Amino acid sequence: MGHGVHVQELPGIGRRYDLDLGRGERRLSVVVRKDRTRDLYVFADTSDEPTAVVELTEEQARKLGALLGGTFFEE
Amino acid sequence: MGHGVHVQELPGIGRRYDLDLGRGERRLSVVVRKDRTRDLYVFADTSDEPTAVVELTEEQARKLGALLGGTFFEE
Repeated sequence: MGHGVHVQELPGIGRRYDLDLGRGERRLSVVVRKDRTRDLYVFADTSDEPTAVVELTEEQARKLGALLGGTFFEE
Repeated sequence: MGHGVHVQELPGIGRRYDLDLGRGERRLSVVVRKDRTRDLYVFADTSDEPTAVVELTEEQARKLGALLGGTFFEE
């Protein structure tokens, strides 16, 4: 499952995961902070400037994760 | 778990999930297509124009979901 994901420790902050989307230079990065909040970065091109940055609480990140992973079920 | 998520059927396309981020007007939308691919939309404000759109294969979506949900483990 690790294929296509690059992991980098961010000392004092947490861990950064880069997901290569394999088309052009698009990629996504998720920073999981020590307090469990997540930052989602969308990079549309080779620029170091993200196209979008979304701060997520742990609960929001879990919901989004479930939607993406196909494990979301309505109450 | 359904709190904060709005689900909408898209006839012939699939299903759209809107995740309210609860801060200002930021929200995320995930469209799960019938072929299992996903589109992730980031909306930074009230505009109907997304700030970013990311097309994901099912495998990419599952990886991102695992990263966000905290269930990602390196091989």
